[in-house]
Amino acid sequence: MVLFSNQLSVKITLAQVNYHTGNFEYNTQQIITAIQKAKDDKSDLVVFAELSVCGYPPRDFLLFNDFITQSNHAVNAIAKHCVGIAAIIGAPTVNPVIEGKDLYNSALFLANGKIEQVVHKTLLPTYDIFDEYRYFEPNNTFNTITYKDVKIALTICEDLWNLNENPMYVKSPMDELIKQQPDVIINIAASPFHKSQIQTRQAVLKNNATKYQLPIFYVNHIGAQTHLIFDGGSCVIGANGFIVDELNYFKEDIKSYLVNGNRVEPTTVGSSQTVRQKYEDLEAALVLGIRQYFKKLHFNKAILGLSGGIDSALVLYLAAKALGSDNVLGVMLPSAFSSEHSISDSIVLANNLGVKTYEIPIADAVDAFDKTLQPYFVNTTFGITEENIQSRTRAVILMALSNKFGYILLNTSNKSELAVGYGTLYGDMCGGLSVIGDLYKTEVFELCKYINRNEEVIPNHILTKEPSAELRPNQKDSDSLPPYEELDALLYQYVEEAKDIKQLIQMGFDADLTKRVLKMVVQNEWKRWQSAPVLRVSKRAFGYGRRMPISGKYDFEIA
Amino acid sequence: MVLFSNQLSVKITLAQVNYHTGNFEYNTQQIITAIQKAKDDKSDLVVFAELSVCGYPPRDFLLFNDFITQSNHAVNAIAKHCVGIAAIIGAPTVNPVIEGKDLYNSALFLANGKIEQVVHKTLLPTYDIFDEYRYFEPNNTFNTITYKDVKIALTICEDLWNLNENPMYVKSPMDELIKQQPDVIINIAASPFHKSQIQTRQAVLKNNATKYQLPIFYVNHIGAQTHLIFDGGSCVIGANGFIVDELNYFKEDIKSYLVNGNRVEPTTVGSSQTVRQKYEDLEAALVLGIRQYFKKLHFNKAILGLSGGIDSALVLYLAAKALGSDNVLGVMLPSAFSSEHSISDSIVLANNLGVKTYEIPIADAVDAFDKTLQPYFVNTTFGITEENIQSRTRAVILMALSNKFGYILLNTSNKSELAVGYGTLYGDMCGGLSVIGDLYKTEVFELCKYINRNEEVIPNHILTKEPSAELRPNQKDSDSLPPYEELDALLYQYVEEAKDIKQLIQMGFDADLTKRVLKMVVQNEWKRWQSAPVLRVSKRAFGYGRRMPISGKYDFEIA
Repeated sequence: MVLFSNQLSVKITLAQVNYHTGNFEYNTQQIITAIQKAKDDKSDLVVFAELSVCGYPPRDFLLFNDFITQSNHAVNAIAKHCVGIAAIIGAPTVNPVIEGKDLYNSALFLANGKIEQVVHKTLLPTYDIFDEYRYFEPNNTFNTITYKDVKIALTICEDLWNLNENPMYVKSPMDELIKQQPDVIINIAASPFHKSQIQTRQAVLKNNATKYQLPIFYVNHIGAQTHLIFDGGSCVIGANGFIVDELNYFKEDIKSYLVNGNRVEPTTVGSSQTVRQKYEDLEAALVLGIRQYFKKLHFNKAILGLSGGIDSALVLYLAAKALGSDNVLGVMLPSAFSSEHSISDSIVLANNLGVKTYEIPIADAVDAFDKTLQPYFVNTTFGITEENIQSRTRAVILMALSNKFGYILLNTSNKSELAVGYGTLYGDMCGGLSVIGDLYKTEVFELCKYINRNEEVIPNHILTKEPSAELRPNQKDSDSLPPYEELDALLYQYVEEAKDIKQLIQMGFDADLTKRVLKMVVQNEWKRWQSAPVLRVSKRAFGYGRRMPISGKYDFEIA
Repeated sequence: MVLFSNQLSVKITLAQVNYHTGNFEYNTQQIITAIQKAKDDKSDLVVFAELSVCGYPPRDFLLFNDFITQSNHAVNAIAKHCVGIAAIIGAPTVNPVIEGKDLYNSALFLANGKIEQVVHKTLLPTYDIFDEYRYFEPNNTFNTITYKDVKIALTICEDLWNLNENPMYVKSPMDELIKQQPDVIINIAASPFHKSQIQTRQAVLKNNATKYQLPIFYVNHIGAQTHLIFDGGSCVIGANGFIVDELNYFKEDIKSYLVNGNRVEPTTVGSSQTVRQKYEDLEAALVLGIRQYFKKLHFNKAILGLSGGIDSALVLYLAAKALGSDNVLGVMLPSAFSSEHSISDSIVLANNLGVKTYEIPIADAVDAFDKTLQPYFVNTTFGITEENIQSRTRAVILMALSNKFGYILLNTSNKSELAVGYGTLYGDMCGGLSVIGDLYKTEVFELCKYINRNEEVIPNHILTKEPSAELRPNQKDSDSLPPYEELDALLYQYVEEAKDIKQLIQMGFDADLTKRVLKMVVQNEWKRWQSAPVLRVSKRAFGYGRRMPISGKYDFEIA
């Protein structure tokens, strides 16, 4: 691969590592191991991701002095291994100026056993799930780094993300760095996965490469930190915007590139955009998200309630894949309103997956609640209260098993339900992790179909029967909610695209339906405040990335 | 009151109003009413708080175009009333420049029936509960406003907060504005209450007044928006730093000041700092917080479980005061482990307050769970699982009453418990609002003593008995936790002051205790993620203002 315009020759290694936020010992060891591999490979420079030393996102860990001290120690320990090789790592560094925030988000250039140069991040993402200006002072000075006669424009993630039609920042670091005529852009990133992020990210890199006519070496995180899943996809982009090579997705990877000669691009390799399969990526992301959440909390066993419906079926499949069938327990909790197939379908599913099940009827506990409450409920009729008692009784049983035997309870709510509040708080909304809380119901169906593409892993009857909470006789989701196709299309525009009621109606959504749905979303902020952390796979997931007032009134009246 | 150095004469009205976030109709009406009052008072200028038109904090409502459009309509409607008087209001405005964030946080100077001038906020608080850089572009140009020959340095809240030893921002707007020789500083604010905020805020205003030798007219919010309580305390500060006058605390207020003559300060009135009573303010803040949460969500009735302990006693008292005794229901939910006094003390308390109670034993439901789970729990012993079942059974009953009759369940967890995870998720951690989740246990005791200062409202036995969860025979909090005095002192330094383990040990805290407590705090992030929104009364409350990784590892090892 010939990339440089002059007769330079340098070998660059991209190290795509799974870091653990705050675990300096582990992260340092992983980085040192990769440096050794790069040395063995006779590499000149090995590049790690943004904030690799402390993990991303460190959040309010950054407020503790000792956290920064530990990070500094780790940086120094790593630097000692950079003899005969250079490395770029990411870490918080202290801002020596009294005015401004106390920290920078920095890229450290290590060589000759020490920190040779430090570059700070200029553009600090503070939107969606990002809070970087909460901690960091933006950079204001721009210098390239020269190493083995190669002039590097070293940038940190968002620094390259200011090229769209409505840029969020008034300046672009590359517009400054390009004045110094660099040979190459290196970008160290922490770019979390969502459904369209791989395409967006490659388009951003491509735009930078072609605008500045420079090759880009890009290193991202892989792994997951609570809500956030990192897909990896580190890559080399040519100055023509074509992808020279990519590292693995959803896996750790390390790869070296010998670059020499002039800036002629490889025309026979690479493409302008990698083609990804949406549901393949979604499955891989969710499996990674579950696995990492358990591993990083030192748990290995999951429990979940099996309703016979599609949501719990999908979560059971993903959990078995992430943790191994032996580490998952499915619990059927039938009531008087449960259909026969709620049990039989669940058993077939569990057998297909090799997962153990319990069948624990809830009638006795529900009856006890009914009797206990009877004196207070005279002259009232069966309604949402009684539905919720069933759901909460199930939660008490699942949590009891979780507490007794050390399972983490997996939540099975989908995004459509979470949006409109079609779920019982402290009931089916319970769980340590919401696995599919960022998938609309229609996406749950599509992902199940994808999983069944070769064989019927999830029984077809689960995919074809009408969705029902089975909390009263003959209940159907469609009694309370619009058809999921309509609901999800509307929710997508409202939640992910932040279209307001006027825009939605202009787009052709029915006015009454839109008002009704938006009202449900707003009225259920209080429930979502207490819901489980959601694995984020869309560009706007409930939780950290969407911050709404609970007692606010803005109800989208049509003015 | 003579404030100005030249022979100016002008009457300024401060309007301290309770806004409702997103409720443009209501906010506009309140503002117009206050403008009329100021007109009746022959005032020249009436000043409202930061983002008064939309309420504070609007959070992600700001992402919707229609929200901004509605805000603009409201501004124009208000401007029409500004004939024969000027007004300063706060609202988001659109940034006309393509680069940068799309909005400014602005102060609008209205006169002659229209928007005469707009000033944008320069310093955007992005820490603790503040997320302003998430939405707003910082201002970069500085101009005073001249009105009736008075030159006004108009600033927005944080714009005056850059004077401490470690300033968070590289520039101070007043350092720019002072070059234009203004006569007066006006600051419109959204400064939420916490225990030491009134003192801090007055010190900040005093520092600005004396540094720039200018009087300050300061207007704050009053009311509450979910977690955030606004105490008001709008005021006039003389150029000598003395308080000329204050508006009410915890109440709406409007007051006019005739200012003329030269900059001589009143020496016979005012003080350098208002003396506040900590527990008087705390009580007022929590009562306001409860009342506003219910009012803004259109609820009026609260339910809570009465354990006979001090936490639920305090919450019952505060709820009765906020909502009226008739609107509160206390429920005693005794188990086999409940002491007799758990009932008798609760009854005396409820009678003192005139609150209705139910007594609903949980034995039948707990027995049903025990029987249901018995086949799975063979050869296991009574432990935390069984304790949690009791707590969760109580939650199911409370939530059933809540759902059936439209009560909001009030959570009674205190900050010490929340910190160390001494509570049952989906059990006693349930509730729509955590009333005392930002009070340490020792503060709960102190506030109860304050409430009892004149008469025994809360039975003394509740204050003197040893704290117990009563979930197993003879259980005491002290079986599991350090004495609350030690625990709370440590938690305060760790949570509020962000002292790390080394600093804590250096401060004299026992090393083993410190490690043990910090580990408990870190290990319970997952529980707190799902806890009720907490009324914030300290400078670092759990929830929005403290953002920790859940699966992060940083465990404060002594390196």
